[in-house]
Amino acid sequence: MPLTVHHLRVSQSERIPWLCEELEIPYELVTYTRSPLLAPPELKALHPMGAAPVIQDTSPSGKAITLAETPACAEYIINVHGGGQLALPPSHPDYADYLYWFHFANSNLQCQMSTSFRFSRSNATDDDMFKKTTVDRKAKVLSFIDDRVSKVPWLAGEEFTAADIMSVFSLTTMRVFAPTDLSGYPNILKYLERVGERPAYKRSMAKADPGMRPYLGAETPKEFMDSIKG
Amino acid sequence: MPLTVHHLRVSQSERIPWLCEELEIPYELVTYTRSPLLAPPELKALHPMGAAPVIQDTSPSGKAITLAETPACAEYIINVHGGGQLALPPSHPDYADYLYWFHFANSNLQCQMSTSFRFSRSNATDDDMFKKTTVDRKAKVLSFIDDRVSKVPWLAGEEFTAADIMSVFSLTTMRVFAPTDLSGYPNILKYLERVGERPAYKRSMAKADPGMRPYLGAETPKEFMDSIKG
Repeated sequence: MPLTVHHLRVSQSERIPWLCEELEIPYELVTYTRSPLLAPPELKALHPMGAAPVIQDTSPSGKAITLAETPACAEYIINVHGGGQLALPPSHPDYADYLYWFHFANSNLQCQMSTSFRFSRSNATDDDMFKKTTVDRKAKVLSFIDDRVSKVPWLAGEEFTAADIMSVFSLTTMRVFAPTDLSGYPNILKYLERVGERPAYKRSMAKADPGMRPYLGAETPKEFMDSIKG
Repeated sequence: MPLTVHHLRVSQSERIPWLCEELEIPYELVTYTRSPLLAPPELKALHPMGAAPVIQDTSPSGKAITLAETPACAEYIINVHGGGQLALPPSHPDYADYLYWFHFANSNLQCQMSTSFRFSRSNATDDDMFKKTTVDRKAKVLSFIDDRVSKVPWLAGEEFTAADIMSVFSLTTMRVFAPTDLSGYPNILKYLERVGERPAYKRSMAKADPGMRPYLGAETPKEFMDSIKG
């Protein structure tokens, strides 16, 4: 079986086709449309957790594998198909920074974005301490990223790596669901401009979400959605 | 500088001393007490995100590094000090399962535990859709783990790996903060019994949280806390 990437449109699984395009490796892309909001039954049938991305492949040990969780899929593809490219090895001076930002993406940033989204839609009141600290944590995380990309072009340092691929979704497409005003984070906006210039990012977004331009600017989700419809 | 592990007592950073004990590598442990609930200023001063764990070391490239985020610290220690032990290589038949469960721990399980904890303490009402789906997701994740450890002794398969070290905190100590009734998950309870028998787990918990026995059973947080005081 060739490497197959199952992608749910307008979702965090956009990261995996992007990775494959950056690595310039062959892969088969299967896309699914939300039905109406969550994954459709065909995608849910692939993996018990019913979420995207899911990848399928014949592993180096000859086993047919079905794998979920974005960072697991990314690590698998980099090591099995990408010859370790886009990851930094232990001998690299930026190794620790690479590891930090690669893992920060899902362990921290995406969890904060998702939790703050859920609180914003819940009936918890704005003065609720747990809702407030959720909002504060999101702001802290964004300031921290803004500071980082004011000093270096890419999260791990001078080199573009899988740490960037892991993080960009939470700063772009995720904002369709979790409205986040980035106008106070000028360095994140400049970083997203750099991302948007990458040919592999453009190619992958056109394949994974045809008709949707990447959400790289500071406009509101409504302005963004209107610009796609228009 | 020797490998130094900064641990906040009764927190997710318990995973890093446990990893070091399993690998049988030298490390210096510095423990901090909550002040009153969050990390004390000395720990916050170590890293901009102000959370534990934080590790410090001289990296293979000769750089003094300060690293946070549990999975990043774990991967660093395994590759730099552990000779790759407790991780599975791409050639291993369980490689994909190892990657899945290693990343599932923080990307999914711990995020669900933390979000459900925050909702349970918030003033969102029990019939709120976002609070309800948070509760449902936690139950789904726990059933999924229960099913997994009914079939294999350790999360990656037959071998104990860092995927277990990454996951156990969310099923044990985290329940002090996010009360979670495990009595409906008999296989998780048996799995935690196996964990509790590991000499390295016992050693690390005694060093990291002296006076606190590991929270491996199905008792409520109150019963657990009373048993420690008693």
